[in-house]
Amino acid sequence: MRSQKEKAEKFRHLHHQDRPLILPNAWDVPSARVFEDAGFPAVATSSAGLMVSRGYPDGESMPRGELVAAVGRIAGTVGIPLSADVVAGFGRGPREVVATVRRILEAGAVGINIEDKDPTTEQLFSVPAQVRKIRAIRELGPALDVPLVINARTDALTFNGAPEELLREAIRRCIAYRDAGADCVYPMRLTDAASIATLVSAVACPVNVMIRRGLPAIAELTELGVKRVSFGPSASYAAMGLLQRVSQEILTRGTFGSLLDGAISFDELNRLASRRPPEAP
Amino acid sequence: MRSQKEKAEKFRHLHHQDRPLILPNAWDVPSARVFEDAGFPAVATSSAGLMVSRGYPDGESMPRGELVAAVGRIAGTVGIPLSADVVAGFGRGPREVVATVRRILEAGAVGINIEDKDPTTEQLFSVPAQVRKIRAIRELGPALDVPLVINARTDALTFNGAPEELLREAIRRCIAYRDAGADCVYPMRLTDAASIATLVSAVACPVNVMIRRGLPAIAELTELGVKRVSFGPSASYAAMGLLQRVSQEILTRGTFGSLLDGAISFDELNRLASRRPPEAP
Repeated sequence: MRSQKEKAEKFRHLHHQDRPLILPNAWDVPSARVFEDAGFPAVATSSAGLMVSRGYPDGESMPRGELVAAVGRIAGTVGIPLSADVVAGFGRGPREVVATVRRILEAGAVGINIEDKDPTTEQLFSVPAQVRKIRAIRELGPALDVPLVINARTDALTFNGAPEELLREAIRRCIAYRDAGADCVYPMRLTDAASIATLVSAVACPVNVMIRRGLPAIAELTELGVKRVSFGPSASYAAMGLLQRVSQEILTRGTFGSLLDGAISFDELNRLASRRPPEAP
Repeated sequence: MRSQKEKAEKFRHLHHQDRPLILPNAWDVPSARVFEDAGFPAVATSSAGLMVSRGYPDGESMPRGELVAAVGRIAGTVGIPLSADVVAGFGRGPREVVATVRRILEAGAVGINIEDKDPTTEQLFSVPAQVRKIRAIRELGPALDVPLVINARTDALTFNGAPEELLREAIRRCIAYRDAGADCVYPMRLTDAASIATLVSAVACPVNVMIRRGLPAIAELTELGVKRVSFGPSASYAAMGLLQRVSQEILTRGTFGSLLDGAISFDELNRLASRRPPEAP
């Protein structure tokens, strides 16, 4: 089995390839294991997916200890590198945020997402405030001997305003976060090819885009120089949409086709609670 | 808001209608809330679905306290009656089993599934041993003032043997469990119309069948006198099958259609972490 340090190094390497790392976000143990079995080289958690699954809205109302425990269950079951979304770090300043990331790494993750929107005020933290947190997290890696991958998310594009100004602010923040030690920057809502090209060229470090309606396909994202494409909570959106269709069919027609077709078996589900057996040599 | 007692009474009443109660089994909070929103009058947990979601194989290896907490999260979020699967009750004798059911009711459930296969030996408990547990659970209702619905599952049909003999054993067990105080009996793997007709007629109490390939549609189950049709873990099977197809499409074609089509939105997902707003009068 790989050490956590080796997993972190492998995960970082996946951000520096010709083709982007396609990173699926899971909400629980079996969703993560399905992605591992499918052949993804790494997996992440979605904060919205994971928190809503446990009965908490996205944000930081889920107790931090429960988040750590949920991440630990996933990390203990998948063999590939796991990145965990810690929202804004569950704390006002660098000390609390570092304490959160430390616990997440101790739970087995080798990467984190940290965002720059204050979950309480819904406003962006100042650039210096966010930079201090990222710097502090960066220093944690050597201390724990886990060279974690920091994915710094900015929500600058999610506010109302002139698109060019929002993009300028997103670029300014991405550069500051990169200089503070982020390995990858993640401008939430960056979707159209022209904006992606502008930002990728300006920040000159790995860029993460999230799959949503309107995002170019992987081939075009590769051309645009994107290095990481994540699912965000979309696997949860898709699964809940399927349950709506299943419900509709059973309640209105009394049949089960959408529930049974393309489903896995009991044994297959049960195996998703455990680590993959080692590959034959 | 309905009291727990009223919810239990409503849930029992749903087993005595002309058409069967269609009871979807959820694995977490949002899957339960989707079923509530779709219009199902009650919801249940699937032990396999819930346990695997938390990283434990189906059975009793999940710590009992974690099961209770997970049931509590769901019970605290849905407004409709919730039935919880407690496997074989997490204990050898009536005292331990009753302690489990008590905690499950205190967590907010108003019904339980209890099965007669020993999760350690994979053999059936003797009829007298299982009857003692069901009797003891029955006595818990008045003590807690929650007239819980007991769904007594038998795994008699899941063993190898001559089909008529297995069916005879299933009927013998269902009658014993009914006489011990079960409100509904649940012969796992009962699927074909002829066997359903025989068993329903022999036991003369509400019968639960689980949706699986080969089960007649609801209209025929109604004719057969079935009073409860549950999903079992099939919603989890379906969701994981969907994630396999999503993965395949992204990894081989680099496109996201199966992830985005028919999905719900962020706001819709986030709302599934909270109770439904009260209906306008």
